[in-house]
Amino acid sequence: MTKLTLHEYPPSGNCYKIRLVAAHLGLPLERRGYDILKGETRTPGFLRDVNANGRIPVLQIGDRYLPESGAACFYLAEGSPLIPEDRFDRADMLRWMNFEQYNHEPNVATLRFWLAFAGEESLSDIQKALIPAKRAGGDAALDLMEAHLRDRPWFVADRFTLADVALFAYTHVAEEGGFDLAHRPAVQAWIERISAFPGHISIDA
Amino acid sequence: MTKLTLHEYPPSGNCYKIRLVAAHLGLPLERRGYDILKGETRTPGFLRDVNANGRIPVLQIGDRYLPESGAACFYLAEGSPLIPEDRFDRADMLRWMNFEQYNHEPNVATLRFWLAFAGEESLSDIQKALIPAKRAGGDAALDLMEAHLRDRPWFVADRFTLADVALFAYTHVAEEGGFDLAHRPAVQAWIERISAFPGHISIDA
Repeated sequence: MTKLTLHEYPPSGNCYKIRLVAAHLGLPLERRGYDILKGETRTPGFLRDVNANGRIPVLQIGDRYLPESGAACFYLAEGSPLIPEDRFDRADMLRWMNFEQYNHEPNVATLRFWLAFAGEESLSDIQKALIPAKRAGGDAALDLMEAHLRDRPWFVADRFTLADVALFAYTHVAEEGGFDLAHRPAVQAWIERISAFPGHISIDA
Repeated sequence: MTKLTLHEYPPSGNCYKIRLVAAHLGLPLERRGYDILKGETRTPGFLRDVNANGRIPVLQIGDRYLPESGAACFYLAEGSPLIPEDRFDRADMLRWMNFEQYNHEPNVATLRFWLAFAGEESLSDIQKALIPAKRAGGDAALDLMEAHLRDRPWFVADRFTLADVALFAYTHVAEEGGFDLAHRPAVQAWIERISAFPGHISIDA
C-alpha cells in the first residue's frame, strides 16, 4: 500500500480520529508533529507543501496531501465495515460527521482548547465573551447525542462507523473543556463501548 | 424513485446546494419552506418530526429524514458524475465540502445572513464584535479558492463535482455579505462556468 503519513498536532481530536481509524483497520501510519501553539502549521513551507489552509490534520498518501479529518477518515475506511454499504446509511453517516464539524467541534473542541491548552488568561476579550455561547452550543450538541443514543447503541446502521469515530474524538475528552458527562448516561455507555473495542487506542497513544 | 421533499428556507445557500444537485440530476423535488427568522425550525413539531437539531435543510426521502446539506447532496449524487470514481478524488471532494462548512460558510454565509437578511441593527454586541474576524476568515477562504482555481477549472478531478456545488452556493452571493469578488478573477470565471451549464438553476428559482 502507498505510504501513509499523518501531519498532526497529537492532542487534537481531529488528528486522533485518523489514528483511530487507521488502528481499527490495521494500517501503519507515520506521524509528523507540529506545535500549533507555536504557529508551526502557518510557516511558508507548511502552507506551500502540506496545506494552504494552514491547518492539521493532513493525511499524506504517497506524495498527495489530503486535509480535513472527515475526508481522511473516509479515504482510509472506503470498502471497510466502518462505512455502511446502504445508500441512506452512508449519507446518514456523513450527516453526523457534518454535525460534528459544524455544531459539536466549534463548541466542545474549542472550549477544550481554550481552557485546557491555550489557557483562559491568554484569550482575547471576544473569545472570553464567546464562552457562554460555546458552552450552550456544546451542551446542545451533547444533549442531541444523548437523546439519539438513548434508543440505539451506535449513531448509524446499528454498528460502529465513522460517525461514531468523529463524535467520539472530542466527546470523550469533553470534560477537559468543562462539559459534564456524568448526567449523560447514554453518551457515557457509548464511550465505554468504543473504549472496550479490540484495537482501540487512546488519544495519548 | 422514492418521493423527495426538501425542508428548506429558500434563500439559504445550504438549501440551494440540494436544489442545484437535484436540477443537474433531473430529480423532482417537492419543497416545503420555513421562515427561520420566525423560528419555524425550532417548533416542537419540527424538532420531533424533521430535525432534532432545529436546522434546515433536511432532505426527506420517503419517510426518512436526512439533515445536513453535504450529506443530502451525497445521497442524491451517488453513482452520478457529480462524485468522482477515483478514491483519492472522492475523498478530496469531501475535503473541499468540509472546508466549505468549516472555514467558508461560518464566515461568508453568516455575514451575508447578518448584513443582508437579519440586518446589522438587529445584531447583538458579540455578533457586531465578531464581524472583523468573520470578514478576515471569509476573505482567507475566498483567497484560498482563488489560488486553487488559478491553475484548474474545477476543485477536484478536472470536472464539476459536489465540491464545486458546495463552494458555489455562498460564493456567488458573497457580495451580499460585503465580500469583494471583483479582485478574484479565477473565482469569477469559475462562477461564470457553473452559471452557464445547461440545467443550472439560480438561487431564487
